[in-house]
Amino acid sequence: MINAFDPTSATGLSPRERALVERRRRLLGPAYRLFYEHPVHPVRGEGAWLFDAAGNRYLDCYNNVASMGHAHPRIVAAIAAQAAQLNTHTRYLHETVLDYAEALLATLPAALGHVMFTCTGSEANDLALRIARSHTGGEGIVVTALAYHGVTASLADLSPSLGAGVPLGRHVATVAAPDAYRGSADMPRRFAEDVRQAFEDLRRHGIRPCALLVDTMFTSDGVFPDPAGFLAEAVTAARAAGALFIADEVQPGFGRTGQMWGFARHGVEPDIVTMGKPMGNGHPLAGLAIRPELLERFGSTSRYFNTFGGNPVSAAAGLAVLQVLHDEGLAENARSVGAYLQDGLRALAARHLLIGDVRGAGLSIGCELVRDRVTQTPATAETTYVVNALRERRVLISASGPDANILKIRPPLCLSRAQVDLFVETCDQVLASVPGHD
Amino acid sequence: MINAFDPTSATGLSPRERALVERRRRLLGPAYRLFYEHPVHPVRGEGAWLFDAAGNRYLDCYNNVASMGHAHPRIVAAIAAQAAQLNTHTRYLHETVLDYAEALLATLPAALGHVMFTCTGSEANDLALRIARSHTGGEGIVVTALAYHGVTASLADLSPSLGAGVPLGRHVATVAAPDAYRGSADMPRRFAEDVRQAFEDLRRHGIRPCALLVDTMFTSDGVFPDPAGFLAEAVTAARAAGALFIADEVQPGFGRTGQMWGFARHGVEPDIVTMGKPMGNGHPLAGLAIRPELLERFGSTSRYFNTFGGNPVSAAAGLAVLQVLHDEGLAENARSVGAYLQDGLRALAARHLLIGDVRGAGLSIGCELVRDRVTQTPATAETTYVVNALRERRVLISASGPDANILKIRPPLCLSRAQVDLFVETCDQVLASVPGHD
Repeated sequence: MINAFDPTSATGLSPRERALVERRRRLLGPAYRLFYEHPVHPVRGEGAWLFDAAGNRYLDCYNNVASMGHAHPRIVAAIAAQAAQLNTHTRYLHETVLDYAEALLATLPAALGHVMFTCTGSEANDLALRIARSHTGGEGIVVTALAYHGVTASLADLSPSLGAGVPLGRHVATVAAPDAYRGSADMPRRFAEDVRQAFEDLRRHGIRPCALLVDTMFTSDGVFPDPAGFLAEAVTAARAAGALFIADEVQPGFGRTGQMWGFARHGVEPDIVTMGKPMGNGHPLAGLAIRPELLERFGSTSRYFNTFGGNPVSAAAGLAVLQVLHDEGLAENARSVGAYLQDGLRALAARHLLIGDVRGAGLSIGCELVRDRVTQTPATAETTYVVNALRERRVLISASGPDANILKIRPPLCLSRAQVDLFVETCDQVLASVPGHD
Repeated sequence: MINAFDPTSATGLSPRERALVERRRRLLGPAYRLFYEHPVHPVRGEGAWLFDAAGNRYLDCYNNVASMGHAHPRIVAAIAAQAAQLNTHTRYLHETVLDYAEALLATLPAALGHVMFTCTGSEANDLALRIARSHTGGEGIVVTALAYHGVTASLADLSPSLGAGVPLGRHVATVAAPDAYRGSADMPRRFAEDVRQAFEDLRRHGIRPCALLVDTMFTSDGVFPDPAGFLAEAVTAARAAGALFIADEVQPGFGRTGQMWGFARHGVEPDIVTMGKPMGNGHPLAGLAIRPELLERFGSTSRYFNTFGGNPVSAAAGLAVLQVLHDEGLAENARSVGAYLQDGLRALAARHLLIGDVRGAGLSIGCELVRDRVTQTPATAETTYVVNALRERRVLISASGPDANILKIRPPLCLSRAQVDLFVETCDQVLASVPGHD
């Protein structure tokens, strides 16, 4: 994975950076990774900008957590004010968590009547699966080929993107990503047929269907948004097999796609929606929304308590995020500026043959680099070069896909057209400098 | 469990409280629980005090998260200042997370060389087990009879305190709590023998030992600190079986027992220490410390990334907690004020026959109520009465143990002697009012 550099052997580090990298390795151990061959060391953020200690600014086109903009003053103020009053948990009554739950449910289909709070998207997916197992009595989960759903033991079992060192559980089946670029015109039907077949295979092995769990933008598979609506047929197939449909909105949610939720693009209503990352704009806040009838069995056999989940400070952060998203029109901005960014990349494609495909929704954008547009041979080494060369020019993105040849572009939703111009110009320079290409 | 009231049918609620309870049920669903038959609705906190909207103050003798005192100004300021600068993650370089890791390791045995950060104690235990499985190649876990280690799927599997509705995994064996009050004088030997036997049983069933995982104060089992050192023999037995020793310090850690860590009381060095709750004084922060050699295999097959874990704001909160703990001498305060509190309860025992045992370390205290001191019959209904009657007098504690007859007392570490006097006087009044007792 391109986003898993271990730069202890990298060159180009300043003595201070090298000392930090070594200190990090010594204190945090071997399982931590940094972005980029030459890691970034930001000390301050504002909107879509990050700044290092020397005052250099970086255009952040990748961090999908600070989606409302780095260090957004209104969200920071909400956190500081509530922390100075009280921070306790959901076994006492508190109004803010209920105000927040209500505001959140108002953005979701009416059938989703309950919210439960966690601290991370991993906890949200882990809880969603516990509830789904309790409701269906099944264990069988279908995910996409390069899915990432979290780091708890039960999620590592079903996150193939963690690599061969973390084997999938035997109750897990994978289907090919819904790739309209490399796939045929009947991709939606094929994807649905794969899902149907995967549940049937699980059943033949004695494993009862539990859930179809997908990131509705298929972000870690390589960003696959089109054609809008393609997911509906797969959801129908999953339900026909007796499985629930869990929409993992940890990455697509909260306006990133130009709509509040990624599933809306497909005209489907999930049974459970999980959410995280931008939910607190960096404050550890995550959760799920669910159809109340699916909680009945779980609620009668289990209680649920998460010490920090839904605490008053987290709820205040979450409410402030919803207010900023609304008041600043950030989903609308993501839609229009995202379209402008895609147009800019398509214009580059006329000059740079490396660009095989540009796709996305709002500010969740994939740009696939290929060595040959007919054979679609993944330009893996070139993509690594582009990501690192952009970083040297202080523009931050990453890459994804099984061949790590898909530029993954996810700026804060407040990105401006001027910032897009800078991004596209810098991409133009970098693409012109790729060894062996023009 | 006494701490799992569902007060939708409670009496004594004001119309406003009833509306809140109903709104909560409607929005958060059936798996959430509240403390007390008459729930508390705090809006502000300071030190060991909580205040409701009418300005009534409650003495908080239970919340083990805000251990440095509610809304501690120094910790709040650290959170606000860092949030206004930057909140991003561990795939960029940042000094604060390293300063914090270093400060944390300085409080631990030298053999524990690496720290990894999560957001919750559940995530910390879940990660500890993933690493322990990777290192040992085993799956078998031994926990105590009423242990609680978290809410992820893999931890619910080994948390018997979640009740019969959440069955234990087949790779899990339980041992009786190390109960010196109800046990015989050779409890330490018996406990170690139980651990040895449990691993042997697992092995006979084809399950290779992985870890002995215990809360070093056995908090949810009923608070069992004595005799100091008793744990050492069990740890030796676990290691002889090929298992690691994981100390769950989520509840005992950070000065509560009068020492920085609960395991110190037993003169043992854990292989992995997990931590959470008071680590950020309410800010979602948790993690683990580990012997570097145990991470080698995990680090070579897996990378680890937790979006919010170890972010600069969490690290700043954690650093501020360590500074406050040190500068205000809170572990020392817990030791001396805790001893004073235990003395107060023992003095009450002379007048109130219900008190069968008083035990604890620092400000982690258990007080067992029995109907008869010879037969030690658990006074379950009386304990429920006492907890709720204390709440009506605005003193907050809870209860634990298999018969929910053990008062669980865990005030913020800044508790004063005057507050202890208020606590003990209120207990005196309440014990005198227990129906059928004097």
